[in-house]
Amino acid sequence: MSNAFDYQSLFAKDLPAPAGQWGGFAKYNFVGGHNDPEGIPIEGLIASAERVLRRRGHTLATYNLDGGPLGDPELRQFLADKLKQYRGFQPSPDEILVTSGSNHALTLLFTTLLDPGDTVIAEEHTYAGALARMNGRGAKIIGAKLDGDGLRADHLAEILEAQRKKGVRPKFIYTIPTIQNPTSTVMPVARRREVLDVSREYGVPVIEDECYADLLWDETWPNSMCAMPGSEHVIHVGSFSKYLSPALRLGYVVAPWPVLGQMLGLKNDGGTSALAQMVVADFMREHYDDHVAALNERLKRKRDVLIEALEEQFGAAAEFDVPPGGIYLWIKLPEAVDTMKLAAPAAADGVAFNPGPQWSVDPNTAHRHLRLCFAYPSEEVIREGVAKLAEVCHREFGVPIRSANVARES
Amino acid sequence: MSNAFDYQSLFAKDLPAPAGQWGGFAKYNFVGGHNDPEGIPIEGLIASAERVLRRRGHTLATYNLDGGPLGDPELRQFLADKLKQYRGFQPSPDEILVTSGSNHALTLLFTTLLDPGDTVIAEEHTYAGALARMNGRGAKIIGAKLDGDGLRADHLAEILEAQRKKGVRPKFIYTIPTIQNPTSTVMPVARRREVLDVSREYGVPVIEDECYADLLWDETWPNSMCAMPGSEHVIHVGSFSKYLSPALRLGYVVAPWPVLGQMLGLKNDGGTSALAQMVVADFMREHYDDHVAALNERLKRKRDVLIEALEEQFGAAAEFDVPPGGIYLWIKLPEAVDTMKLAAPAAADGVAFNPGPQWSVDPNTAHRHLRLCFAYPSEEVIREGVAKLAEVCHREFGVPIRSANVARES
Repeated sequence: MSNAFDYQSLFAKDLPAPAGQWGGFAKYNFVGGHNDPEGIPIEGLIASAERVLRRRGHTLATYNLDGGPLGDPELRQFLADKLKQYRGFQPSPDEILVTSGSNHALTLLFTTLLDPGDTVIAEEHTYAGALARMNGRGAKIIGAKLDGDGLRADHLAEILEAQRKKGVRPKFIYTIPTIQNPTSTVMPVARRREVLDVSREYGVPVIEDECYADLLWDETWPNSMCAMPGSEHVIHVGSFSKYLSPALRLGYVVAPWPVLGQMLGLKNDGGTSALAQMVVADFMREHYDDHVAALNERLKRKRDVLIEALEEQFGAAAEFDVPPGGIYLWIKLPEAVDTMKLAAPAAADGVAFNPGPQWSVDPNTAHRHLRLCFAYPSEEVIREGVAKLAEVCHREFGVPIRSANVARES
Repeated sequence: MSNAFDYQSLFAKDLPAPAGQWGGFAKYNFVGGHNDPEGIPIEGLIASAERVLRRRGHTLATYNLDGGPLGDPELRQFLADKLKQYRGFQPSPDEILVTSGSNHALTLLFTTLLDPGDTVIAEEHTYAGALARMNGRGAKIIGAKLDGDGLRADHLAEILEAQRKKGVRPKFIYTIPTIQNPTSTVMPVARRREVLDVSREYGVPVIEDECYADLLWDETWPNSMCAMPGSEHVIHVGSFSKYLSPALRLGYVVAPWPVLGQMLGLKNDGGTSALAQMVVADFMREHYDDHVAALNERLKRKRDVLIEALEEQFGAAAEFDVPPGGIYLWIKLPEAVDTMKLAAPAAADGVAFNPGPQWSVDPNTAHRHLRLCFAYPSEEVIREGVAKLAEVCHREFGVPIRSANVARES
C-alpha cells in the first residue's frame, strides 16, 4: 500500500495521540506487567487445549461458545470456586463477567459510572492504565494518601467529608488493596474494614482491583473486601494476566446484575476470546495451586536478585520496601533525580522502566520514583540492567555516587 | 452479591440500553453469524496448539507475544500471503492490524474517521453491526442502492454529486463487495472498477469489508479492490469469524501506517488474544485450502437444504436470489408481512431470524425482508425450523397460503 491518499485530513477531532511504530522490547526490560517466560506452564496448556478442544471445540462455531455474553460458564465456575477458596466470598457465576483483561473491565466500569466532570478517588500512586481511563472519561481524580498498609482510611474520610461539604458525591473509590500497584503493599484486614466503613458511610462504591492477589507469597492472606459484611457497594476486579499470561487477555469483574447488564450493553465485542477462556478454565481447575506455587517461587527469587543488585549498584541511594509478593519494586532515588528525564537516556542504553509520575495522581509527588517489574527479565539480565541503570543515572544526575564498592567518576 | 446498593443512580447519562439476561439459543437458530459446529477442524487445531505452544508458548508471558501491538507477526505473514494468493494484492505484514473480530476493526476505523454529524455512505441493506457503530458515532448514513451486482456505482455517483453540491465530502463509503451482507451478491470486476473510479473522483475513501470472501463457492472470484490500480483510498477489512470461528474473535484491517497508527492509539486493549492468534497462524499456514474447501462443501449443502425447505413451505411467497457463497439467505415475503412483528411470535415458537429493517439504512425499505443464516443449524433443524416459520407466518399474516402442497386453514 502507498501513502498516496491523505487519510489524515479526514480524521476525527480530539483523537488520542497515534501510536509510534513498535521497535521491539528493550534489552533490559523492567517495564509494564510482563511475566516470567519460564513460568508459562507449556505442557499443562497443551494438555488442556487437547482435552478441551476435543470435548468442547465444536462450540467455537458460535459466538460466546454457546454460553452467553458473560463468558464461558466453565471459566466463571472456576472463578466462583477460586474466589470462595482464596478470596473469602462466593459469587454466583452469573455475577461474573469475563473481560479481555482487567483493563477492559475497568474501561467498561468507568464508562458505566462516569460522566465528564465527575469526581473519583484513587490511591495517590496507582495503576497508570486506570488513571488514563478515568482521565479519558473526563473525571476529576483526587489522590488519597498511602502508607505501609495501603490506602489511608483517615485520609479517605477527610476527602469524602470535604467533598460532601462541597455537595459532591464521588462516583467511586478505586483501590488495589492486595499488592498495591506500584507500591506492593498489602492492606491488612483491619484497614480493609475501615475503608469499607468510611466508603459505606458516604455512599460511595469501592472498585477493588485485585489483579495481583494470587501472587502473595505469605501463607496467609487477607480476604477480599467482598468477603466482609456490609460490602454490597464493593465491585471486585481480577485478572489472569499476572498469574498466567498477559497475552491471553483474560480478566473479570464481579458485580450485581444491574451493573453487569449495563457493562454488557457497552461491551459489544462479540465476546471475549473463547479459546483462551476454555483452555484456561480447564487448566486452572486442575493446576491452579501447583502453577501459582511454582510461579511465586520464581518471582520471589527474582525479587531477591533485584534487591541484591540494587543494593550493590545503588546502595543507600535506592530506597524501597521489600515487596511481599507481586512483580514490582517501587523505588525512591535521591531528590536530584527526575525519573521522567532519566527514561530517555536509560532507554538509549537499553534499560526500560516506568517513571513514578506516570503512576501518580499528582505527577509532582513522584518525580524521583520509578517502578521496576522484575518478572520478565532473567536473573542475569536483572543484574546487568540494574548496573546499567546505575551507570546512566550517575551520568545524568550524579547519583549513585558509589556503587559495587567502587567510587564512580564524577 | 445482593442488590442492596443502588448503583444505578450513579450511572452515566446517555448509556446504551443495558443487556437483558441471556436465555440460551433458540431451538431453530437462524440468527447472527454463527458457523457450522461440524466445520470446526478440531484435530487440526489440537495439533497446532501443541506445536505452537511448544515452540512459542513462552512468549505468552509478554503482552502481544513479543511482536508488538499490530498483532502476531506469524499471523500477519499468513494474511499477507493469503491476500496475495486469493485477493490479488500483497500488503506488507506491517500494514495489517489484527483486531478482536472485524467488528473491532470497524469500531476503530469509524472512531478514527467520524465526528458527530459526519456523512457516510453505506449499501441500502448492510451489516447491522456496522450501522450501529456508525450511528454510535453520530454519523448521517446515506443508503446507496444495490442490484444483483452489489453496490450500484451510478447511484453512488448521484449521491456523491448531490453531496458535493451541498459542500459535503462524505467521510467514507462502506461496502461489502464479495458476498454482500445480507443479500449475498458478488460484485463483478467491472463494477468494482466503477466504484473505485467514482469514489476516487470525489476523494472519498472506500472501506471494503471482505469478511465473507473465503466462502465463495465458485472456482473463480473477483479480486479485492485493493488489487486494482488507483486503489490507494481503499481500506480492506477481513475476519476469521466466517471461515473458522466467530468465538475466537480474530479480524484484521489492511491500511497505510498513518491510519493503523491512529487506530492503535485508540485500541488500547493490551493486544488481541494471543493464544487464538498463534494457533490460527499455525493452523491456517498448513490447512487453509483443505479447511475452506471442506467447510464450503458443508455450507453449500445447507444452502440447498434451506432453499428446498423454503420452496416446500413457502412456495412463491418467499422470493430470494440463490447465494453463490456465504452463510445467509435474504428473503422477501409478501407485502402483508412485517418481519419486525413476525420476530416475537416466531421466537416464542423457537425460531430466531434477523428482520430486514435491522439490516437496512432505511428500515422502511425492508419491512417484509428477513435474513436467515443457514450455517449453524443442522439440515434437519433447517427443515423443521422453516416449517415452523411458515406456520407462524401464516398464523400472523395469512401467508404462505399453501405450503408442502397442503392448503393451510385460513
